[in-house]
Amino acid sequence: MIPVRGLPEVREGDDVAALIVGAAELDDGDVIVVAHKVVSKAEGRVVSLDDVEPSGRARELAADEDPRRLEVILRESARLVRTRPPLVIAESRHGFVCASAGVDSSNAPEAGTVVLLPEDPDASAERLRHGVRELTGRDVAVIVSDSFGRAWRKGTTDIAIGCAGLPPLLDHHGERDAMGYELHATVIAVADELAGAAELVRGKLDRVPVAIVRGFAPDGDGKARELLMPPERDLFR
Amino acid sequence: MIPVRGLPEVREGDDVAALIVGAAELDDGDVIVVAHKVVSKAEGRVVSLDDVEPSGRARELAADEDPRRLEVILRESARLVRTRPPLVIAESRHGFVCASAGVDSSNAPEAGTVVLLPEDPDASAERLRHGVRELTGRDVAVIVSDSFGRAWRKGTTDIAIGCAGLPPLLDHHGERDAMGYELHATVIAVADELAGAAELVRGKLDRVPVAIVRGFAPDGDGKARELLMPPERDLFR
Repeated sequence: MIPVRGLPEVREGDDVAALIVGAAELDDGDVIVVAHKVVSKAEGRVVSLDDVEPSGRARELAADEDPRRLEVILRESARLVRTRPPLVIAESRHGFVCASAGVDSSNAPEAGTVVLLPEDPDASAERLRHGVRELTGRDVAVIVSDSFGRAWRKGTTDIAIGCAGLPPLLDHHGERDAMGYELHATVIAVADELAGAAELVRGKLDRVPVAIVRGFAPDGDGKARELLMPPERDLFR
Repeated sequence: MIPVRGLPEVREGDDVAALIVGAAELDDGDVIVVAHKVVSKAEGRVVSLDDVEPSGRARELAADEDPRRLEVILRESARLVRTRPPLVIAESRHGFVCASAGVDSSNAPEAGTVVLLPEDPDASAERLRHGVRELTGRDVAVIVSDSFGRAWRKGTTDIAIGCAGLPPLLDHHGERDAMGYELHATVIAVADELAGAAELVRGKLDRVPVAIVRGFAPDGDGKARELLMPPERDLFR
């Protein structure tokens, strides 16, 4: 676990791959975990609240908080899952179920702005992976991460919202343990565990938005959207 | 992240702290992550299905699987959260919401047996921590982990069901980021992230049930039960 220190504050249009390559020595097989806010800011996914006119529904959901923030959340949502004003758990347009549809005010580039999730975090991860290969020749994997709450448990853990160059799920389906018992429920969300592990070293206030996991040696490829439970299998819709 | 290799198959009555100390060099501040099955087996939390008489309810929930296993799940459950026979998501008597109330058939000591969660996983973690200190003088933290599924996402991640010698939640409440924005939603479930990180090195089939996380240097103490969302705050009951 290697935190990547010394990255500058990211602005719209910045080349995040170049910034990472400039700040860290990379090896083949490294997993680069990037907090989504870096990616979102570089991609211009920042909204100024002064440009937002809140709807009546946003005002209802806001309680005593800023209704313009709730309006942005509604625009980013495909479906509201639970609401307790001003708290909204929503399914984002990507299919992620999380607080505020991923809309975040902390670490925004300026007061009065909010940061959205990347438009397509898997594509963002793939672009970063490609950019690193172009610049260094290194074959790395990339995870774009965010902090999500969980049903029934307190606190957030970082999980993978975008992924490239590694399989997000490690499937032991059909393998057998040492007793010969089939491990039929053993599909491990390694991309989420990697994102959480990286959070431990990134810290939240040290402004270290990127960490490298070395030695995991992922074999295969996949997208973070594979981690989404399909509606027909989802017991919690 | 250091996997602890060479542990023997654990049996009822075994001293798990002594086994770990015999297999690994420990430092002050190490976090020892132990898969709960090791602890459960040592504590005799294993049920032979031959001793179980399934109820009518267990038969209903079993579909075409063994109704005796469902009977054990019902006994371990405080409340059924979702059922789709033979799948049961239940709140265990500890308050954990998970598949099968934590009752597991894989890695059971013998065919025809199932392994339950420890009676009090926080107490198990504390006993291990105490045992390591008695044997080595080292001041370590201990996490007892299990693989849990998640609402809305595929795959399992390892999380903390028992904890001693570290704060399971890292609370940035009231701290401010570099823009002066208050990080009021930033409570990180570090014990869960540590358990997940350890899973990455433990693997599932290599039978490495223990891993050490070195360099995290936890400061404080707490119980894994602090990770449980209290019913009055729980939007997903």
